[in-house]
Amino acid sequence: MTQIAIVGATLIDGNGGPPVPNAMILIDKGRIKAVGARNGSAPPEGAKVIEASGRYVIPGLINANVHLLDAWTMMIGVGTLEYLARFEGRLHEVIEEAAQVALAGGMTTVFDTYNALQPVLYARDRIASGKAVGARIFAAGNIVGMGGPFSADFSKASRNVATRAFCDRMDAMFEAGVGRRLAALPPEEVRSIIRGYLATGVDLLKFAISDHILAEAINPHLTFSARVQRVIAEETRAAGKPLLSHTTSLESLNDAITLGVDAMMHCTLTAQVPIPDDLIEEMIKKTVWGEIQPVTHDYQCHLERTGQFMAGYAGGFHKENTIRLIKAGAPILMGTDAGCTDPDVLADLPEGDRHERPWDLGKDHVLWFKAMGELGMKPMDMLLAATRNVARAYHKDEVIGTVEAGKFADLVVLDADPLVDTANYRRIHMVFKDGIAIDHQALPVKKVVTAYPRCEPA
Amino acid sequence: MTQIAIVGATLIDGNGGPPVPNAMILIDKGRIKAVGARNGSAPPEGAKVIEASGRYVIPGLINANVHLLDAWTMMIGVGTLEYLARFEGRLHEVIEEAAQVALAGGMTTVFDTYNALQPVLYARDRIASGKAVGARIFAAGNIVGMGGPFSADFSKASRNVATRAFCDRMDAMFEAGVGRRLAALPPEEVRSIIRGYLATGVDLLKFAISDHILAEAINPHLTFSARVQRVIAEETRAAGKPLLSHTTSLESLNDAITLGVDAMMHCTLTAQVPIPDDLIEEMIKKTVWGEIQPVTHDYQCHLERTGQFMAGYAGGFHKENTIRLIKAGAPILMGTDAGCTDPDVLADLPEGDRHERPWDLGKDHVLWFKAMGELGMKPMDMLLAATRNVARAYHKDEVIGTVEAGKFADLVVLDADPLVDTANYRRIHMVFKDGIAIDHQALPVKKVVTAYPRCEPA
Amino acid sequence: MTQIAIVGATLIDGNGGPPVPNAMILIDKGRIKAVGARNGSAPPEGAKVIEASGRYVIPGLINANVHLLDAWTMMIGVGTLEYLARFEGRLHEVIEEAAQVALAGGMTTVFDTYNALQPVLYARDRIASGKAVGARIFAAGNIVGMGGPFSADFSKASRNVATRAFCDRMDAMFEAGVGRRLAALPPEEVRSIIRGYLATGVDLLKFAISDHILAEAINPHLTFSARVQRVIAEETRAAGKPLLSHTTSLESLNDAITLGVDAMMHCTLTAQVPIPDDLIEEMIKKTVWGEIQPVTHDYQCHLERTGQFMAGYAGGFHKENTIRLIKAGAPILMGTDAGCTDPDVLADLPEGDRHERPWDLGKDHVLWFKAMGELGMKPMDMLLAATRNVARAYHKDEVIGTVEAGKFADLVVLDADPLVDTANYRRIHMVFKDGIAIDHQALPVKKVVTAYPRCEPA
Amino acid sequence: MTQIAIVGATLIDGNGGPPVPNAMILIDKGRIKAVGARNGSAPPEGAKVIEASGRYVIPGLINANVHLLDAWTMMIGVGTLEYLARFEGRLHEVIEEAAQVALAGGMTTVFDTYNALQPVLYARDRIASGKAVGARIFAAGNIVGMGGPFSADFSKASRNVATRAFCDRMDAMFEAGVGRRLAALPPEEVRSIIRGYLATGVDLLKFAISDHILAEAINPHLTFSARVQRVIAEETRAAGKPLLSHTTSLESLNDAITLGVDAMMHCTLTAQVPIPDDLIEEMIKKTVWGEIQPVTHDYQCHLERTGQFMAGYAGGFHKENTIRLIKAGAPILMGTDAGCTDPDVLADLPEGDRHERPWDLGKDHVLWFKAMGELGMKPMDMLLAATRNVARAYHKDEVIGTVEAGKFADLVVLDADPLVDTANYRRIHMVFKDGIAIDHQALPVKKVVTAYPRCEPA
Repeated sequence: MTQIAIVGATLIDGNGGPPVPNAMILIDKGRIKAVGARNGSAPPEGAKVIEASGRYVIPGLINANVHLLDAWTMMIGVGTLEYLARFEGRLHEVIEEAAQVALAGGMTTVFDTYNALQPVLYARDRIASGKAVGARIFAAGNIVGMGGPFSADFSKASRNVATRAFCDRMDAMFEAGVGRRLAALPPEEVRSIIRGYLATGVDLLKFAISDHILAEAINPHLTFSARVQRVIAEETRAAGKPLLSHTTSLESLNDAITLGVDAMMHCTLTAQVPIPDDLIEEMIKKTVWGEIQPVTHDYQCHLERTGQFMAGYAGGFHKENTIRLIKAGAPILMGTDAGCTDPDVLADLPEGDRHERPWDLGKDHVLWFKAMGELGMKPMDMLLAATRNVARAYHKDEVIGTVEAGKFADLVVLDADPLVDTANYRRIHMVFKDGIAIDHQALPVKKVVTAYPRCEPA
Repeated sequence: MTQIAIVGATLIDGNGGPPVPNAMILIDKGRIKAVGARNGSAPPEGAKVIEASGRYVIPGLINANVHLLDAWTMMIGVGTLEYLARFEGRLHEVIEEAAQVALAGGMTTVFDTYNALQPVLYARDRIASGKAVGARIFAAGNIVGMGGPFSADFSKASRNVATRAFCDRMDAMFEAGVGRRLAALPPEEVRSIIRGYLATGVDLLKFAISDHILAEAINPHLTFSARVQRVIAEETRAAGKPLLSHTTSLESLNDAITLGVDAMMHCTLTAQVPIPDDLIEEMIKKTVWGEIQPVTHDYQCHLERTGQFMAGYAGGFHKENTIRLIKAGAPILMGTDAGCTDPDVLADLPEGDRHERPWDLGKDHVLWFKAMGELGMKPMDMLLAATRNVARAYHKDEVIGTVEAGKFADLVVLDADPLVDTANYRRIHMVFKDGIAIDHQALPVKKVVTAYPRCEPA
Repeated sequence: MTQIAIVGATLIDGNGGPPVPNAMILIDKGRIKAVGARNGSAPPEGAKVIEASGRYVIPGLINANVHLLDAWTMMIGVGTLEYLARFEGRLHEVIEEAAQVALAGGMTTVFDTYNALQPVLYARDRIASGKAVGARIFAAGNIVGMGGPFSADFSKASRNVATRAFCDRMDAMFEAGVGRRLAALPPEEVRSIIRGYLATGVDLLKFAISDHILAEAINPHLTFSARVQRVIAEETRAAGKPLLSHTTSLESLNDAITLGVDAMMHCTLTAQVPIPDDLIEEMIKKTVWGEIQPVTHDYQCHLERTGQFMAGYAGGFHKENTIRLIKAGAPILMGTDAGCTDPDVLADLPEGDRHERPWDLGKDHVLWFKAMGELGMKPMDMLLAATRNVARAYHKDEVIGTVEAGKFADLVVLDADPLVDTANYRRIHMVFKDGIAIDHQALPVKKVVTAYPRCEPA
Repeated sequence: MTQIAIVGATLIDGNGGPPVPNAMILIDKGRIKAVGARNGSAPPEGAKVIEASGRYVIPGLINANVHLLDAWTMMIGVGTLEYLARFEGRLHEVIEEAAQVALAGGMTTVFDTYNALQPVLYARDRIASGKAVGARIFAAGNIVGMGGPFSADFSKASRNVATRAFCDRMDAMFEAGVGRRLAALPPEEVRSIIRGYLATGVDLLKFAISDHILAEAINPHLTFSARVQRVIAEETRAAGKPLLSHTTSLESLNDAITLGVDAMMHCTLTAQVPIPDDLIEEMIKKTVWGEIQPVTHDYQCHLERTGQFMAGYAGGFHKENTIRLIKAGAPILMGTDAGCTDPDVLADLPEGDRHERPWDLGKDHVLWFKAMGELGMKPMDMLLAATRNVARAYHKDEVIGTVEAGKFADLVVLDADPLVDTANYRRIHMVFKDGIAIDHQALPVKKVVTAYPRCEPA
């Protein structure tokens, strides 16, 4: 395997220090061998030299919260049945495609925090073993305590027109034994089930501290009692895996911080209740990472102008929460809940809903940077939120998150400075993953969700 | 006011001791003046003497859990809209009628643990002031944390065909400011709201530790965080009012016992999970009263044979829980969730569903006695569960619950011994409430729900 | 009974000739005894003289198409269940109230072309016998071939939350034996049923040539085969009663005209298909009266601007049809489908929906005049459409429709000339029905639908 | 191409005469060259000789009414959305598979009377050109006047959870321009549209005289006015194509016979009204072919015992109608509405529903024979109903329907006599279509609907 030397670029290494002009990054056997200011030194003999003067090298981006099967469609409940019926048996292909779309956008690693267990592990392993290209996947499978796509948590209404056979099969696959029933069980039974679930090979464990927000305008009920929450946390820690929370209310957020989970998904969604200062302080003190899902100012205005339910998603006190977390210097992660939404679902959206829509994988992170910038986050902090912070939150900072010797050679070479204008994250020149230059413009290799046949031959 | 002397009956005074044959009970100014074995002593001069030889006197029965507006209809969601539209503006009359139906069945006091606040307090006060006849009402109003009849907790589906104006008006009346929104609020906001609610004049406070069971097969989510639960308990105790729990899962039951509420409604409904022995022991140790809702063997067989969802209500582990609580000598209350169901709702039921249906106010307690007897409870224990125990649980034992001097003269004179056959509770000879002999066969005075006009004049 | 002489007013007698200034109308025993220019003659001795100089006398208005139980609510399906449950057993009172609201607006006669049979006949008879005040009612009962309020024709969705007992009872009452099942029966069976229905005492027979329009965007299917249509027409004619059609498509309109019905309700509603010229000519040649339901320009603009389904009701080709019928001089009737809509249903409407809403009984005809004037109908023609024409169409011109000697003394005295400004129809000075001056400002006598109790006493 | 001689079998040639023992059938270039009693003559030199002594040769069976996309699923509305989403873009493959399943069962020709136009024509042409194996298809495309799968005619409820984009696309494909909107149009517009539709290449035209039966218990409304019915008939005849009716009521059946259509689908379904004798007589006199859909006695008993809605399908007066048509000697066609139902839909059916279910293509005709035999039809008449009669009804008797010289060599060789026991139709030894011996046990070649992947790889 030939060494690669990227020379001449300005390096933003993901450690938060000042960018290094005219840097040299040496890649060997998929890892970064050396990195630093060039200082006139020449690339090693035999190395393939990539001239990158005038360009910018950043760590491969990491998304703390994606759903490579489109969770957004499951949430809204319209299109869910079509989506799953259309792709049944090929869901791993859908996931693989989404991982490629993410990679094409510069995300070299994604944390999938809700998905059908079996296909996501299958796709993860295919990518990890090099059988398929795509962003590196770490997967949680089901959100512990939540039901499948045709349960009360998602599109139960589909059951009015779907076969029971299909719905039950799908629900069983998604629930993977850790569905709603867990909420009814006593601590020691939950412990044993969680232990079994952790043994399936999931990389993370995410659990529903409160029920999710879309089924009802107000549904912040807690899935687990305090003592069962502790059991779940204990078992996850004993397995050495990151523990993630799903919360939708202030009380559930308070529980998450009290428990000291590793990362809190959409931590600013508190059913429109402001997060108190002392809770923010505790979050900082304990370094409980908070993934935040902002929307751009334009998108929020659109939602409000058209009187949509989703205006409450990142508006009002949810927006205020975000601003206050930024201002307080809280530990923030970039995450988006994004996936590859079915084109029919997109086609149904009113015109304005597609513009700056934050859930389109591949564009999601750029909108995240734009939105967080609008709310006051500094360019370098945003870059860290999408690189080093995620690696740390999920205990992967030994191998990813920064451009440092010894880590996986996951890099993005940009044509313009992302710290000057977040839109420059789109100006991708090259993407390296595991030291390999990705033909990112050829991704996805096989269009599955993004373009399926709609015509019969004539 | 003339004194009344009931002479010659066997007295079962509600204290659990052996029945007193040939007793005399002297009533004066609505209270019991003296009580005991007759021992040849004569009634006071001028007293109206009621000869009751061969009969049995028991304390006026107390139902720990009724809904004088029919909550069962709201639960099933069919008929709810008709019921509320038909009787809007007259709901207090519906409540008054139900209190009369209860009284006719020998219940001199009922604890209404879920109802529309304003009309139930109005009817309570009319009865308390003697403007209307009826069982004495103590009322909780809304279940704190639950939504109104057209919220997600009950018949939200009615909103598809009902006017928003009507639904919102009803929901606001039932929620009385302590609806689902509370679940999203932080402790101190909840505290202030609860304080205000306690000041409306409610006699008890009941709160939803978990969401209710019928909306979903499995929905045992917790309404409030542990710290908000504590705030609710603190405020209720500070107001000197009994605290009741609504639980539907083992974890919520555990929370109720840990909190030490006064009484737990339907405490055996644990989403079909057995209650562990140590929890039963703690319930006994702390004397946390448990209201239990059994069904008769015949009714359970019918539900199972016809494959009904409600077979899970008092069957399976719920039945096992009941048997074990009885055997362990746990503190048990008689309660039924009964009301006066709309005749159209009853007409829709398949034939077998009406036989031994446990939610028909006036007959409910007799079926309770039958069912609990079948499950092993002793006759005297059952009588205590429907008299003294309820009074104690709800802090009313100074005035009701037993036939003792100084207490309200609430008595039922039966034609046959209820300890020999629970069906004898039906053989009512006389009912006294506040020392007044009730014309129980003339109740209800005005038929509202029980018979409304169905024909147009021709 | 004292004679009444109305003197000095300008008389517009409903025959279409020039108004007669300074007229005298003599009323005796409920009928018009004499009418004409005053020419200096004095009222008879003893007559009560009503000085009306400067005022205008017109015949009592006649609405060719009302629904004294609010059919509009049944059509939209929201509020239907509440409405019927709230007023069950008192529907005749609702009808009586609506007849009073109509009378207060100057309508001395209304043709109710769809209603619950028993209560509408009961209210009709009470008014006819003088037991109650109100517009004179002629009633059709059910629309032959249509189902009840909870059938597929109206709010079948209510059955999801209503009791079957109630729905079946209501459907049976409305269908009165001539519901949807008729569409499945052969001619001679239909004949026998129709004969029986005509014998119930209905004044008119209206039948569904096509199914109604609101259930689906496109549902113009024909209820009866051509040969069954003929049977219905034969029997109705044999009974000497007016035959009315309900049509919603061009083909059904064509059938109505071919059959030669007496009057066609909402004849311009043709599923947005233009009525061909030759069909208009045949309508004129055969004098098949067409009731038309226009909306005002402002209301139509509002519907279109807010993108409402109802924009298709009186807009597009339906409006063109109306304009062409006016221009062609087709025989037109004033009718409105109006009733007294439940205040909760009205409260649900967006603001703009209540302004110039054409279905509010009492104001409906004034908006009709405004709308038809905007579309080119002449003031005198509009007055005839709301008086003489309706009387002729329904074979009642011997007694109503014009101010002529021998007819019922149904008159409206207006403060200003309705031929100059249709808004002047609102400026009612007096209303006479059967020669009696109505205290129109005191109507309705008892508020039932228009204001029901919404509050519980506190 | 080698000649084939089938020798020694008993020939039932489809003309109704006595079977010919020891027959010889000579096939050349896909056609029958000669046929008759062997009489000792030898097969031509070089011919491939198939020894069939002890076997029975019948004409290739013809099904007058199938739906190669499963119309039954569309009717019930459950599973429809999955089915169409799963196979979108491959519907022609589903159709091809179904044509192979039919062929494997001995049906060499099927008339598909409702299907998505484009894919059914595509599959038809692939089979006709020899690119694919399968039963010969003649196709009607849409039922004129009916909406697509997500219209009010079928599973409109799917639209609650499906994307509008997908539903509209499917509806447009199925409606092919001749959907529900036609019911609103005047005759000459319908004429022009029908002319265009006939020019698309459909082999037949089927139109909805009445709306279909499953959407409502009673929905026998007529789709078209009498004059539009005539226009449709005129145009279809002018194009020289068979005209088929869809009727669900007596009145629509009467219209079909009056119009003199070629064949009437499910002609005994009259909304449970008996067909009068004179109408049966006219059907016979005019030779209007009636396709009948009986069920077996066992299946009917099952439906009735389990109280299913479908018990009304072939029971009650529908059964009586069938018996009377058989007895009267009416012109009857074998047809079944069968298709290949999605295994998930089948899995949802209660156990007893799958036994003798009449809509499973490939077994459907054998159950038809059994059911019609039970109702009194003679074995030879049944064979003609499934061969010659269909060919005649659809004007294809020059080439198919009997085993006669000059016709296509479509034959089935059975192991036992089908006239003795209808179960023998299952004992298929060989199937010839167009003179080619089909490897019927290898069909379907590619499993699409009948077995799709349900598992993700692990």
